[in-house]
Order: sequence, then C-alpha cells, then structure tokens
Amino acid sequence: MPAFSTNMRLKFPIVALLLEVVTIVLYAVFVVYDDGNYSGHHGPEKNWNHANETNPVALYPMFQDVHVMIFIGFGFLMTFLKRYGFSSVGMNLLLAAFGLQWGLLIQNIWHLHDGKIPVSIKSMINADFSTATVLISFGAVLGKTSPVQLLIMTLLEITTFCINEFLVVEKLEASDIGASMTIHAFGAYFGLAVARMLYRPGLRNGHNNEGSVYHSDLFAMIGTVYLWMFWPSFNSAIAEPGAPQLTAIINTYFSLAACALAAYATSSLVEEKGKLDMVHIQNATLAGGVAVGTCADMAIAPYGAMLIGVFAGVISTIGFKFLTPILASRLGIQDTCGVHNLHGMPGILGGLAGIVAAALGKKKDISPSYQAAALASSLGFALIGGTITGLILKLPFWGQPPDQNCFDDSLYWEVPEEEEEAGESLSHTDHSKNKGDA
Amino acid sequence: MPAFSTNMRLKFPIVALLLEVVTIVLYAVFVVYDDGNYSGHHGPEKNWNHANETNPVALYPMFQDVHVMIFIGFGFLMTFLKRYGFSSVGMNLLLAAFGLQWGLLIQNIWHLHDGKIPVSIKSMINADFSTATVLISFGAVLGKTSPVQLLIMTLLEITTFCINEFLVVEKLEASDIGASMTIHAFGAYFGLAVARMLYRPGLRNGHNNEGSVYHSDLFAMIGTVYLWMFWPSFNSAIAEPGAPQLTAIINTYFSLAACALAAYATSSLVEEKGKLDMVHIQNATLAGGVAVGTCADMAIAPYGAMLIGVFAGVISTIGFKFLTPILASRLGIQDTCGVHNLHGMPGILGGLAGIVAAALGKKKDISPSYQAAALASSLGFALIGGTITGLILKLPFWGQPPDQNCFDDSLYWEVPEEEEEAGESLSHTDHSKNKGDA
Amino acid sequence: MPAFSTNMRLKFPIVALLLEVVTIVLYAVFVVYDDGNYSGHHGPEKNWNHANETNPVALYPMFQDVHVMIFIGFGFLMTFLKRYGFSSVGMNLLLAAFGLQWGLLIQNIWHLHDGKIPVSIKSMINADFSTATVLISFGAVLGKTSPVQLLIMTLLEITTFCINEFLVVEKLEASDIGASMTIHAFGAYFGLAVARMLYRPGLRNGHNNEGSVYHSDLFAMIGTVYLWMFWPSFNSAIAEPGAPQLTAIINTYFSLAACALAAYATSSLVEEKGKLDMVHIQNATLAGGVAVGTCADMAIAPYGAMLIGVFAGVISTIGFKFLTPILASRLGIQDTCGVHNLHGMPGILGGLAGIVAAALGKKKDISPSYQAAALASSLGFALIGGTITGLILKLPFWGQPPDQNCFDDSLYWEVPEEEEEAGESLSHTDHSKNKGDA
Repeated sequence: MPAFSTNMRLKFPIVALLLEVVTIVLYAVFVVYDDGNYSGHHGPEKNWNHANETNPVALYPMFQDVHVMIFIGFGFLMTFLKRYGFSSVGMNLLLAAFGLQWGLLIQNIWHLHDGKIPVSIKSMINADFSTATVLISFGAVLGKTSPVQLLIMTLLEITTFCINEFLVVEKLEASDIGASMTIHAFGAYFGLAVARMLYRPGLRNGHNNEGSVYHSDLFAMIGTVYLWMFWPSFNSAIAEPGAPQLTAIINTYFSLAACALAAYATSSLVEEKGKLDMVHIQNATLAGGVAVGTCADMAIAPYGAMLIGVFAGVISTIGFKFLTPILASRLGIQDTCGVHNLHGMPGILGGLAGIVAAALGKKKDISPSYQAAALASSLGFALIGGTITGLILKLPFWGQPPDQNCFDDSLYWEVPEEEEEAGESLSHTDHSKNKGDA
Repeated sequence: MPAFSTNMRLKFPIVALLLEVVTIVLYAVFVVYDDGNYSGHHGPEKNWNHANETNPVALYPMFQDVHVMIFIGFGFLMTFLKRYGFSSVGMNLLLAAFGLQWGLLIQNIWHLHDGKIPVSIKSMINADFSTATVLISFGAVLGKTSPVQLLIMTLLEITTFCINEFLVVEKLEASDIGASMTIHAFGAYFGLAVARMLYRPGLRNGHNNEGSVYHSDLFAMIGTVYLWMFWPSFNSAIAEPGAPQLTAIINTYFSLAACALAAYATSSLVEEKGKLDMVHIQNATLAGGVAVGTCADMAIAPYGAMLIGVFAGVISTIGFKFLTPILASRLGIQDTCGVHNLHGMPGILGGLAGIVAAALGKKKDISPSYQAAALASSLGFALIGGTITGLILKLPFWGQPPDQNCFDDSLYWEVPEEEEEAGESLSHTDHSKNKGDA
Repeated sequence: MPAFSTNMRLKFPIVALLLEVVTIVLYAVFVVYDDGNYSGHHGPEKNWNHANETNPVALYPMFQDVHVMIFIGFGFLMTFLKRYGFSSVGMNLLLAAFGLQWGLLIQNIWHLHDGKIPVSIKSMINADFSTATVLISFGAVLGKTSPVQLLIMTLLEITTFCINEFLVVEKLEASDIGASMTIHAFGAYFGLAVARMLYRPGLRNGHNNEGSVYHSDLFAMIGTVYLWMFWPSFNSAIAEPGAPQLTAIINTYFSLAACALAAYATSSLVEEKGKLDMVHIQNATLAGGVAVGTCADMAIAPYGAMLIGVFAGVISTIGFKFLTPILASRLGIQDTCGVHNLHGMPGILGGLAGIVAAALGKKKDISPSYQAAALASSLGFALIGGTITGLILKLPFWGQPPDQNCFDDSLYWEVPEEEEEAGESLSHTDHSKNKGDA
C-alpha cells in the first residue's frame, strides 16, 4: 500500500470526533445520574449499588482499582516492545476512553428506566469492564493496526460484547463474576480472529522491532504488577456484598499467588539454561486471575483456587513457549502479546472450572449446562464477531501500517529525536530519514 | 552569574531546615488530632468529615487518590524532559512535603477551635490540595530555578493561595468544588507571572536539553494516566456526601473521557502529517478534569460534562501548538510545561462554566456574580502574588542556574555516570571498560 | 564455583513447586474463608475485622495500599541498579507471592479456630506484612544470591518472624502497630546477618554493575514515592478503628513530610558541592515512616511525630554517607541497598521511641520494660535467625552467582539483546559474547 495512506490527518480526527459527537447526542437523550430513585425498577441488575444503599459511592475504591487495571495495567503491560510504547499506553488510553462511553450506553440500552440510563458507580465499573475486551484484543494485533482501525474495532467489539453479556448474564443466568468467559475468553478469541483476518505473510519471519529492550521490559512490569495486585478487585467488584465478595477477593488473591510460583517454575523449566523469561513473568503470572474468574465467588476453598492458579500458570507459560509459534506458522495467527496464553486458554479454563463447580454445587442456582452454554456463546460471538470485524478492518483505506513500519511508533506519533537510538547503532547510517515521513 | 553560586551546600540545608523548624514549632503550638469534639464549633467547614460521622477515616481512600495525584501524578508528568527527571519527581516530592505542612497551618489559621487546629482526613486532603498550586507553578518554571528558589516560592504561593481560598470559599461563598479557579487557574497564572519575572533572553532560541527522549516520555505517561484516572477523586473528595459527591465523580469521569478523544483528534489535526504529539497527549487529555472542576457537583448532566471536556481538550491542544510559542516570543513568558494550556485556560473555562451554570440554576445558593468575583479574585491574587514572588526570586543569591545549565539535573544532583548518554555521543572512546564484562 | 552450577533449570523449579505443593496441602487441611462465625473464639486478635462488623471487606482499601507497597514499592525501589531491574521487581514478586501464602499459615497456626485458619482481609494484611521482612532482607543481599537461595531465605525468615511476632504481640503484649521492631528492625538485622555470612571478599572494591544509570534511578523513584505515600496505611491498617487509626495515619503523614525535608537538607549538607544524592532521596525520605511505626497510634502529637521524622531522616542519610562504607570494610557486611540505614537504625529508633512513649504514658496498658523486651527479642531473633539462615545459604549447591556475575540479571534471566547497551559503547566489539553464558 502507498505510504501516504498512513497519514491520519483527516481520517483519524473525523472518525474520533464523529464517534464522540454521536456518543454525546445519545448521552443527551439517555443518560442521567442515578439518584437512587431508579433502583426499584430494574429486574436483573439486582445489585444496583446495593453494597451500601445509603452511600452511593461505597463501591468507588473498587472502581478505582479496576480503573487502574484498565489504564495503567493494560496500558503498560503492552509497553514491552522496544519502539511501540507510545502507542501501547497512548492507544490504550484512547480506546478505553471511547470504549467506556460506548460500553455504558450499550450495556444499559436493554433495560431503560423510564426511558433513561441512570449512571452509578456500578455502571461505571461495568463500563470499564467492557473496555477490557478491546484492550485484550488490542494485544493480539498490537503493532499492526492504525488508530482508525482500532477505533472501529472498539466500536464493533464492545457492541458484540454487550450482546453476548446480555445473553449470558440475563438470559442464561450463568455465573461469571470475574468474567473469565465474557471478557477474557471473548476478548482473546475476538482478537485472534481479527489477527487471523489481518494475517501478514511479510511478518512470517518476525520483525526487527518485535522485541523488547531492557527498560521497556521494566515499563511492562509496571503493568504486570498492577494487574496482579488489583485482580482481586476485578473479580469481586460487582459480587454480592458480604461473604461472596470476600470469597471472590480471597480466591483471587490465592490463585494469583500460587500461579506466580507455577509460572516462574515453568519458565525456568522450559528453557535450556534454566533462565526466567520476561515474557512469561509479565503474562503467565496473571493467568491465575483469569482462570479463577468464573468461580471466584464460589465456595471452592482457598486450596481449590490455588490449584486453578497453578494449572493456569503452567499452561499459560507452556503456551507462550510452544503454542504461540505454532499458531503463527500453522494457522496464520500472529498474536503479538500472546493473548491466547494469558486470556484465551485461561479464560476457557475458567469457564470449564465454572462448569465443574456448578456440577459440584459450589454455588446456588447455577447449572452446569447453562454455564457450558455461556462459554459456547462467548466463544461463538468472539469468533464470528472477530472474523467480521477483521474483514472490515482489512478494507484498504484505514491507514494500516506497511509491514516494514509495524511495531514502530514513529508512523503515527511524533517521536523525539532519538539520541539513545542514534547512539545505539547508527554511527554509520543516517537514521533520521526513517523519522517522521511515513 | 558565577558558577560557584549554584552550590547549594549551605543555602539549601539552612532554608529547608529553618522552614521545617519553624513549622514544627507552630505545630507544637497549634496542631492537634481531631477527636471529633471540635466538630460543633466550626462555622464554614460544614463538611468536617461528615461523610461518616462514626468513622473518622471514611474519606481516607479519597485522600490517597489525591495523594497519588500530587506525588506520582504531578511528579512523573514533569519527567518528560530528557535530563531533568530527578528534579521533576524529586523536587515535586520536596515541595509537596513542605507545602502540605505549611498549607495545613495557613488554611486553618483563620478559624481556630479553642485556639487549636484539629487535623482530620479532610484537612489532610485540603493540605494536599494546597500543594497542587505550587506544583502547577513549578511546571511553568521547570528547569530554570534552584531548589532554594522553589522552597521560597512554595512558602509564598501557598500563603497567597490560602488567602484567596479564604475569600472565595468563605467570604464570597462561591462554589468551586474541583478548584478550577482557586487551584488550577490560580496556580497557572501565579507560575506564569513568576516565569515572566524570571524571563531568560538566553533561552529565546530554546535549549538543547529542553526536549524529551523516548523513555522520558513514557515516564511522563505514568503521571498523565494517574492524573487522568484519579481526577474524579480530586473533584469529588470534599464534595457533600451522597448525591453531590456521586455527581462530581460522574461528571469528571465523562468529561475526561470525552476530552481524551478531543485531544487526540485535535493533536492529529494540527500536525501536517497527522501524527499524534506526546506533549498534547500527556497534557491536553487532562484539561477536561480541570475545566469541569467548578461545575463538577452541579446538575449539568453527563452530556454537559462531556461538552466541557471536548471544548477543554480542543483549546488545550491548540494552545500547546500555537499559543505557547507566541507567549514565549511576544510576551517573554517561557512556560516549560505549558501550564497555561493545561491549567490556565481550562481553569478559566471552568470558572466561566461555573458562572453559566449558576445563572442556569444548576446548583442551589450560588450566584453568577459571586462566581465571577471568585474567578477575578483568583486571577488577581495569582498575577499579583506571582509577580511579587518572581521579583523576590530574581534576587541574585538563590543559586539559580546559568542559562547553559538549565534543564539539567547535574547542577543540583549527583547524576550517575551516564553510560547511556556517553554511548549516545561518544562512539570514539572506549567505553566498554566501564562495564562489568562478565 | 563452576559456572554450570548457576543453571537453575532443575533446582529452581523443584524447590518452587515443592514449596507450592506443600503449601497447597496445608491449605487444604487448615485454611477456610472467615464467615464471621469464628469471631467469638479467638483471644488475642481482638480486632478481627471489627472495623465494620457488618462489612467483611471494610479493610480492603487499606489492604490494597499495603499490597501496592509490597509489590510496587519494594519491587521498584530496588530497581536502581543498572542491570538488576528484572531480578529486583521479578524476585520481589516471586518472594512475596510465596511469602504471603506461607506467612498466613504460620502466623495463624498458633491459634486455630475449630482446627481451622479462617481467612479475612485482616489476615491478608498480616500475610502481606510478613513478606515485608523478607523484602527488606532481600535488599541487603541484592545482586549476590540465586533464586533458590532467596526462596529458602523466605521460608526461614518468615517462620522466624512469626515466632518473634507471636512472642512480642501475644506474650509480651508490646505495642508495635507500625512494626518498627518486628518488621523493620527484624528484617534489616536478619538480612545483615545473612549478608555477613555471605561476605564476598571479591567484591571488597565494589563491582562495576553496582551502580545506577539515569533511568534506573527513575524506576526506583516509583518505588520510593509509592512507599512514601502509602506508609500511613502500613502503620494504621490494623490499628483500632476510630481515633487510634486516625492518629496512626496523621502521625505517619507528618513524620514522613518532616523526614523528607530533613533527608534533602542532610543529603545536600554532606556532599562537598551541596548536590542531592539519589540514594539518599530514594531511601532516607522513608525513614520517618519506619521510625514512627511503633508510636504511630500513640498520642505523641503531630509535632512529636515530626521530630521523630526529622531525626530519622538525618541519621538515615548520615548512615548512607558514612556508616555503610564502614560496615563493608570493617565488619564485612556488604549491604547492597543500605537497609541498615532505611530499616535498621530507624527501626531501632522506633523501638526506643516506643519505650519513651510508654514511659510517658502515651498509650494505655503498655510498659517500657515490655517494649524494651520486644525490641531485644526482635533483634535477637533477627541476628540468630539470620546467621543460621546465612550458614545454610552458604552451602555450595544453591547456584549462587560468581563474583563477576553479581548484580547482573543475565545470569538468571533471558535479557533482551541490548541495543541501547550495544549502542553505548560497542559498535566495534562483539557484545553478544557477554550474554547468557554465565
């Protein structure tokens, strides 16, 4: 594709502002503050801020933990690439900022209250959750998409997510408190389907910029550690107050702790010299949080959560080591961040654990078959929605980067004159001509 | 000025310890724990921790969010300069640590309770707030001032701030819950007035170190994202509990989300090649939090907050692109961080929005004229206080940096032998002997 | 020692998985959710989540602040070394993840409830606390130990800690709410004893990698600032709700603020050119949090807390400047992070302050003699436990690094090909031979 097509000057502002204008108009029509008087009306969302009926901001600290996961956690986790940090944390902010506005609308459009959507802290948490699907999928296509493509993916993915969530939670009445199925598995397989559609044969043998440098790996650890620390909040934020919420916190805390040991051990075990691999540490340590999600508020006992965590840590690490290369070479799925290993397999594991827990009666009023249907629905919507989205994103006018400019911020960002870079390698070449003229 | 004058060995410790000793003596005389028995006495601060009368630490999570904004948010936002990160995050810590002690004293000296200042979480939040003014002004003079100058500015600015705040909140009884006027506009114009007084013709054509490198921009994004995430806490921390606090959270959340899209779109639009500029993303995405401050707890509806956010994002980005260079060249105001664009104009916008909202009756018991007077008062105190402070800081014995050492940590900090830097420029020397050659 | 012995491929996974399996078995036998029905049984822990009897997650925001200190604070504080960031933040995560599982078991094994350990948010806070001892000791031996050694140290140190804590808190009934004695002094002297046992004459003249680079110092400041901000939570998390908790927050807030000024002033004063030293700023600014720990919930008045903070900041900075080199050269104690200055001396200072406060009657039901006994017990257990642990770690088969590979991640981690490093110096040399072949 011709180089000039990557100039975002008109495309991107038009798409971004158009989306924002439409959103504001819809908000003017539909969205109001939740003054507590809407509480009686709604059916399914029985928990509408009931954490503390006298204090409408009781859930606010939980919301902020989730907020940090979305914007710092996901954003910095993806800064591991040596020349793609601006896009990782910057696009993450943009997509989540749009996504939360859009998600809040679509999640609540199914059950208006007097024709309105009342906003509470709980609906802000759910809006943040909806953006997580996009940020997971972003990881699969990281470095290979334009800002316009990503905004369109956000629009389509969140819409699809809300439909599936509505089916799973309100029709099937399945239990998925930490969203192993509806967010993690969904986001991963949606993103993998998009990545499959956007397969780039030219990147078959890798790309010079598709790796980390020392400090970019440290930036990524900021993301990892925040996700790791606040995952108990993610899995418990909208749980029933009281014992179920405490259970969700405890299960996630222990699952992650056990998962960390398993991921470290496996990382060392699969490498000839027994060295730890930052890719595993940054990602597989978190798989326990994903995998315990569906069961988090169930009485699986702390050691049950730990077993789930260990299992997730092992399969996630093995996935990074052995499966990701096969997916790329055999199936044409180039999964930049390995979301299949962090969100895909552990998400399915979480769904399966939920089915087993339902069969064992670990939570009242849930059935294995509906849990299984919820998992199937999430995977189905993800694969179909991702495929369609990928086909749309394949259209040639979204300003996608040429192969040689993948994984490089300088295509869509002003990048400072790179003294460090210059010093790195290029005393002999004129590096500056690569800059700023895509 | 002669180089030796920048040696801080006596000046700085003497000023710092003197300030601390005076502060401790005043605390010994005035400051006590709030045991709840003072609650009946005070007039204006009707909200004294009334969030939860039985739990004196109910506001603590809000306090910690604000605390993170002050120390991580402001501190890392200013690390964007390539060689000034130690000073940015380090001086930020020092100034805020002194400022909060001083601010708590001066904010409460107007209305003692039995001759004492009782400390509660709410007064700690207000003390943190008072430091924000200095940190904003710090941004205007970043790289061009000595630690001693900055301590003196902290002393003078917080004192001025407390006088203006007293007038605005307690005499005019104006509404400014998120402090668009009393903190943001005040801090910006105070800092700009100081910068005008400290104008350096020698930096007219810029300075080699006045720019970023790739990783310094990523450090700055830590600051940006934390400010962005926790701004709802800033604008709501001391709001009336219940619906007003919820309203302040929701308005700020949506204003920032909409502002982000507007800032990204505008950033791309104003650049010939349509690329995003990190300076805009780091700063203009936050303008929505500033601009919605005054109105945050008013019933402006979510879409109203979003409109304010969009407007703030656009004018802030345009300000960075077009206005900052003009201020420097025409008015002699060298605004290192562009605080005029992030805090100045959006702060005034917030004040104006408050006047309009008052006129439209969006909050009980406020009047447009008093809101306007509050804005005028804040700007007046800022400009006069900043000018006087600037004149004092211009005295030649505070150890200010010579032009050529501006924006360079190594003047006031031990800086590690710069292998990275060395490599940047020194391809002709054998650097490798410094390495641990394992 | 032969190079192959540092290959972790079998040792490390076996030890890690063995520890995890044993832990899970013990959890299956002992650990259950706290459903509130155990509350009546226990004797000493009178506070079992009584912060809010109707809300079992009332302490959760406090827990998350502590969690951030443990994983971000300690982890990033140690990233100051130029080539040891992966190990710092990565091993910190591993050790704390194992440590919290182990700590929760041993802390509660003394007083089972119906043969079970019920987990609440409060026990999670205490479990996190127990890991802090190990992370402090880790700082003393940073860069000179293998992952296997560190896991063994974690096991032994937390076990020792729990015995001492049991004696201090439940037998002596000493007051140590912020754990100046039981965590900080204990962790520091335990680590120093281990470091003494692992003395490396080969590092007598320092090591090329035992220093920072510009950006590694900024990463470390992330740790510093988070520790600084959340220390009030550390010292108050398990305080009596109400006034004592508020007191602990306020005392810590002011002690740290005053300490910061003292540390900055002293840092400038002890350096010939009056420059600030990042080592002091990163560490000594925190000494006020350590030193006020024991007294945090006592009525020492805010100015009393500030005096403690100032004193701690001064002695800590002086320790870094003058004492650390002497410890290394005279006593053979190579204290990488200077934990003696940040945790050791300030911890003892905290214990002494507690004795004085007890003598002055600043808290009911405590006696100076039992406070003194608590301090002596903590130091005794630390020195004896650390010495024994050091002897065990000295055994030659734990894969400890050869002297020349100390302070270098690449011995135990896959490290990305260092373009930055390469660019620095080595356009002409074959840098790759330095990699991966320790």
